Amino acid sequence: MDITIIGIAGGSASGKTTVVKKLQERFTGEIHVLGHDNYYKAHDNMPFSERTLLNYDHPDAFETEYMVRHIQELKEGRSIEHPTYDYTVHNRARETVFMEPRPVIVVEGILVLEDAALRNLMDLRIFVDTDAEERLARRILRDTKERGRSLESVLTQYTTTVKPMHEKFIEPSKKYADLIIPRGGHNKPALKMLECYIEALLARRNEREPEEG
Amino acid sequence: MDITIIGIAGGSASGKTTVVKKLQERFTGEIHVLGHDNYYKAHDNMPFSERTLLNYDHPDAFETEYMVRHIQELKEGRSIEHPTYDYTVHNRARETVFMEPRPVIVVEGILVLEDAALRNLMDLRIFVDTDAEERLARRILRDTKERGRSLESVLTQYTTTVKPMHEKFIEPSKKYADLIIPRGGHNKPALKMLECYIEALLARRNEREPEEG
Repeated sequence: MDITIIGIAGGSASGKTTVVKKLQERFTGEIHVLGHDNYYKAHDNMPFSERTLLNYDHPDAFETEYMVRHIQELKEGRSIEHPTYDYTVHNRARETVFMEPRPVIVVEGILVLEDAALRNLMDLRIFVDTDAEERLARRILRDTKERGRSLESVLTQYTTTVKPMHEKFIEPSKKYADLIIPRGGHNKPALKMLECYIEALLARRNEREPEEG
Repeated sequence: MDITIIGIAGGSASGKTTVVKKLQERFTGEIHVLGHDNYYKAHDNMPFSERTLLNYDHPDAFETEYMVRHIQELKEGRSIEHPTYDYTVHNRARETVFMEPRPVIVVEGILVLEDAALRNLMDLRIFVDTDAEERLARRILRDTKERGRSLESVLTQYTTTVKPMHEKFIEPSKKYADLIIPRGGHNKPALKMLECYIEALLARRNEREPEEG
């Protein structure tokens, strides 16, 4: 199978998840989404209190080579057991998701363009680019309303890890992007174009299918 | 006819002309390209020596309302006489190009996202974004080799008009873009996606054609 890998990176609360969700809704059963967050390192031997203190915005928090291996396996036509992550305990969950190869694989996460091995597997590299203060505003709303956190804890985390990691690793990875989508999920013309591209990739595959099968 | 207007802006020597040329080659006879440069104001009553001193990187150098009228006419199904510009005499030429409506119209120029009326006619707004020093390097090579100008004259023009106009008008217009294409014409994945999008627009039109006709 000829598999196209599309990477979607962007800062925290940039709107990349909205882009990915819209693609998942539009192409249910036709594409796979691999979230980098699901490849956070497992810390089974570390106490919960220590796990809460880890820097989850740093590249070292991820087991990226595991994700790279999974993408390679899908490209080679093999199925994978995609890991899942349990945010409530800050650790990898026991459940996995069985995934067979599909013609389009979206790889998403804040740092997916930062790692060279991961980046080199991608056919199209997208960076969702949203102004820093807009991302902060969205993050405050999301974390206080949906995740029940205090304003102070959100802002402390923002200034101590989110912002410095963004500037050190995420923003510099933008230079590897083939395409920059400003404003994220609310950018309808960009989404339409991306959907159109994926539609064409799937249509081409369906045209070839009878010959191959 | 359902016409899609795609705007392509970007700084001097950003690579936007390469993008546009590749689209023209790929879709010969199927799309139109309207260059903002061809709508530079006519200065028939101004002496040549004065015309050479005008600031051609300023929005006031263009008769943008004329271009807006032409795009509206094409959208309404009417033909236009597209003006042409003679760089050797810094004035509008007598020749015009007859253009009948086509399903996709590309509108290109350094300032096409700067003007609100022009921008509002577009279905997709693209900004080709290339680092300033790379644009300068390309411009030096182009102007000294292809246009026989001295290095000193290129650099003087760059610092006195090109750079300040870029910072004042072109760079701020990037915020209106739906899509940012880094590196311009050599960015193959972005070009492939854009071509795919235009292909789909043309295919949809061809599908509808028999019913309408």
